[in-house]
Amino acid sequence: MSLVRILMFLIFVRASLQASAKDVEQWSVFEVSFNVESRINPFTEVQLSSIFVHDSLKIKVNGFYDGDNIFRIRFMPPQAGEWSYVTKSNVASLDDRKGKFKCVEPSSINHGYVCVRDTFHFAYKDGTPYLPLGTTAYAWHLQEDSLCKQTLQSLKESPFNKIRMCVFPKKYRWIMNDPAIFPFEKKSNGEWDFERFNPTYFQELDKNIDALAEMGIEVDLILFHPYDYSWGFDEMDSITDIRYLDYIIARLASFRNVWWSMGNEYDLIKSKNDDRWDSYFKFIKANDPYGHLLSVHNGPRWYNHSKPWITHLSLQTKELESLVEVRDKYQKPVLVDECGYEGNLPWEWGNLTAKELVHRFWVGISRGCYVAAHGETFLDDNDVLWWSKGGVLKGESVERIRFIKKISESFPLAKLNPVSKGYWRKRGGCCAGDDFYLYYTGNTQSKYIEVELSDNCLYDVEIIDAWDMVVRKYDEKISGKCRINLPEKPYQVIICRNIKK
Amino acid sequence: MSLVRILMFLIFVRASLQASAKDVEQWSVFEVSFNVESRINPFTEVQLSSIFVHDSLKIKVNGFYDGDNIFRIRFMPPQAGEWSYVTKSNVASLDDRKGKFKCVEPSSINHGYVCVRDTFHFAYKDGTPYLPLGTTAYAWHLQEDSLCKQTLQSLKESPFNKIRMCVFPKKYRWIMNDPAIFPFEKKSNGEWDFERFNPTYFQELDKNIDALAEMGIEVDLILFHPYDYSWGFDEMDSITDIRYLDYIIARLASFRNVWWSMGNEYDLIKSKNDDRWDSYFKFIKANDPYGHLLSVHNGPRWYNHSKPWITHLSLQTKELESLVEVRDKYQKPVLVDECGYEGNLPWEWGNLTAKELVHRFWVGISRGCYVAAHGETFLDDNDVLWWSKGGVLKGESVERIRFIKKISESFPLAKLNPVSKGYWRKRGGCCAGDDFYLYYTGNTQSKYIEVELSDNCLYDVEIIDAWDMVVRKYDEKISGKCRINLPEKPYQVIICRNIKK
Repeated sequence: MSLVRILMFLIFVRASLQASAKDVEQWSVFEVSFNVESRINPFTEVQLSSIFVHDSLKIKVNGFYDGDNIFRIRFMPPQAGEWSYVTKSNVASLDDRKGKFKCVEPSSINHGYVCVRDTFHFAYKDGTPYLPLGTTAYAWHLQEDSLCKQTLQSLKESPFNKIRMCVFPKKYRWIMNDPAIFPFEKKSNGEWDFERFNPTYFQELDKNIDALAEMGIEVDLILFHPYDYSWGFDEMDSITDIRYLDYIIARLASFRNVWWSMGNEYDLIKSKNDDRWDSYFKFIKANDPYGHLLSVHNGPRWYNHSKPWITHLSLQTKELESLVEVRDKYQKPVLVDECGYEGNLPWEWGNLTAKELVHRFWVGISRGCYVAAHGETFLDDNDVLWWSKGGVLKGESVERIRFIKKISESFPLAKLNPVSKGYWRKRGGCCAGDDFYLYYTGNTQSKYIEVELSDNCLYDVEIIDAWDMVVRKYDEKISGKCRINLPEKPYQVIICRNIKK
Repeated sequence: MSLVRILMFLIFVRASLQASAKDVEQWSVFEVSFNVESRINPFTEVQLSSIFVHDSLKIKVNGFYDGDNIFRIRFMPPQAGEWSYVTKSNVASLDDRKGKFKCVEPSSINHGYVCVRDTFHFAYKDGTPYLPLGTTAYAWHLQEDSLCKQTLQSLKESPFNKIRMCVFPKKYRWIMNDPAIFPFEKKSNGEWDFERFNPTYFQELDKNIDALAEMGIEVDLILFHPYDYSWGFDEMDSITDIRYLDYIIARLASFRNVWWSMGNEYDLIKSKNDDRWDSYFKFIKANDPYGHLLSVHNGPRWYNHSKPWITHLSLQTKELESLVEVRDKYQKPVLVDECGYEGNLPWEWGNLTAKELVHRFWVGISRGCYVAAHGETFLDDNDVLWWSKGGVLKGESVERIRFIKKISESFPLAKLNPVSKGYWRKRGGCCAGDDFYLYYTGNTQSKYIEVELSDNCLYDVEIIDAWDMVVRKYDEKISGKCRINLPEKPYQVIICRNIKK
């Protein structure tokens, strides 16, 4: 036995011991690593995968090279019980490695990963409804340490349960700084070596996604974007793109809080056409063992969300009044994750008042859709704008989004559909069967509204001021066709709950 | 000579004397009347017209029967000087009547009738620019006297220079009362006698249009509308419709403050198809001797405003952000005269806040278009809603519209076109050449805006708060590409005036 073989054997034993020593929660990451010095390019020439088996369940995952002679395999067990695995590799010392581990029931804060439920809604894998309350900070994780920590602290204290962020660095007005590290190594001629990922870059990403998972924040991970400056990550060739996707899936698919966002403003990435995008979607769908949420965020041109690999719509749009039509057309969850940010930029995408942004959240909810599109773009002496770099939250919408989170706990989330007909259908009326109705008056000042509730139910009414964050109980119980008096000011949410069961 | 003939002769002499006794201002009404007892139906069987001649100008106008054996001919002289006329009729006593009168220069408050100017704008016939600041009170003139008087007083004190009102009575929620008089006589069987107009009805209309003219208010006179209840004025046959249009033109075309609005929500009038509408437009265009403004107000379906008889767009729309595209497409003045009313109705067309309505006026102005769409729909114990019955003005938008009127006096109205390119083109930037720029920030809170002024000019800047009605002078003079700091709140209008000439 050569020294290397002995070493590998010991590592193998250690890995197995590690795994068996610490039980893994369902929907958490089981990881096994192998210390193998590879003479061939460990990113491009080493093939490594593993089959994980539990009863009749067999799941194949790919491994990845993480630098320093470490190969890793990560797996998210979808079910509790005994799991075993065996590796397969073109490198003998990585091949036919076996092990097992025990997967235990998830803890109370672990609900699994988010999936589509009931056609139009989201729920965690354990069935818990998920109401996306999202923010955007594209490249927060690529800023200096102290800023990253501040961002994480801000997120921890925030109501957000979703964030849009990029894998690749971003350069654009107000974020003109280079990151300290890049996702690829450089060749001696100074060009990127697209055949060598920079593991440190991705280790940082792992760490940050994990930190977000601990806060219950889903990561809508943007795989490509056009704001690349001159790095060229937006115009890599297909082979490089696919290798990158493969690497990302191998590293991150086991993180339960990951969603795949193929691109931010994908249509502004001029180097790729729809055929290429489609092939990337197919690749992810075929290689993600878990079926994480998968979508793409548009610029001016929408992707065809009818395509089968798209799990939900991830829209940039200001046309929120017509979301019911969008929902009807695509028969998928409609998530607007960009509709302008709260801020004071000179441009319309970043100069919304807090009132307008919060209003847009409610426009979504009241149409059985989701507007989870927080972001802040307040000019800053140090160019720390939340939307790109994170930092501290300065706006007035955050508290109103927290209020949404709080009051919606008593709503039958993931069951809200636009009312079936009449005035409110496209104007902000949704319901869960006959037991729960929600109406949103938007930027209007009606003295009363006329609604059509079930004649067979009796309803308690609450009038919620979405801006002032005040909930008023209505004195009367109501039923059938009726009139509900309002305080004649904008942003009123009317909740009718059946109390006769 | 029979007694009748003697009487007619005397009347003729009197009419001629009347006319010559009192000079008529240019663009005012010259009227001559004939007292003739007709044995045939004076509305349908008597043909009466007159040719008015001044130098090489020859204008033919039709006369009309006004009850009590009175036939009238009304004429609006488009030019000062001596005019003569001669009548033509199938009734001998009305035929070949001759006369003349002197037309004098208009007084300082008489600017003529409003026409299209410079493709996209309006001006009075004497060239004075006209900025429409309009309101709507569909059937104010058909309410009881005291209410009519109150409405006229409200209008007198208001900033409005345009009103949308119907010829026919209207019945709809909150206006369920019958008018005291109707436009047609009834037959003995209780049905309308569509061959006999009720002159009293139209005399009242004359009087009210005249009263509005004295206040400088243009009347966008709605000829047909769908809110007819069961009277049937919306579903008369073509012959009756044309006879009605003929009568209206004969009575009212000589009133300089009249605009023809073919229909209010014409597309909801189910009895007429586009061919019929087209034929009515052609009829008006052929028979109105002056070429008053002619358009039609849509419901859900727009009329094809490209048709040659349409002088300007008269739109109902909420899609104000895209007015520049509309303007580009039709190459005519774009006037939005309905985009929701200030009020507290349960429905979206009547529950706007004043802020939102005033905002919409500025959206129009800043796009080189016109949103002249005031209306109030505040619920009232006596169902007196301004939008239909008039009364008193209760809202907060009126004062802001007065403010628009005041500050726009120094604007180069009727020259404002969207800036030719760049960010502001479709977002609220317009200009008059290089000498005047106007930007409107809308419902946003930018800390500054970036604008592109001429390098060859030097600009004074004013920041106008369209809601608070405050004008602040900017300290610096600016030039070329530059940044203008703002107070970070909605509804700011930025005016840049070239001072280097």
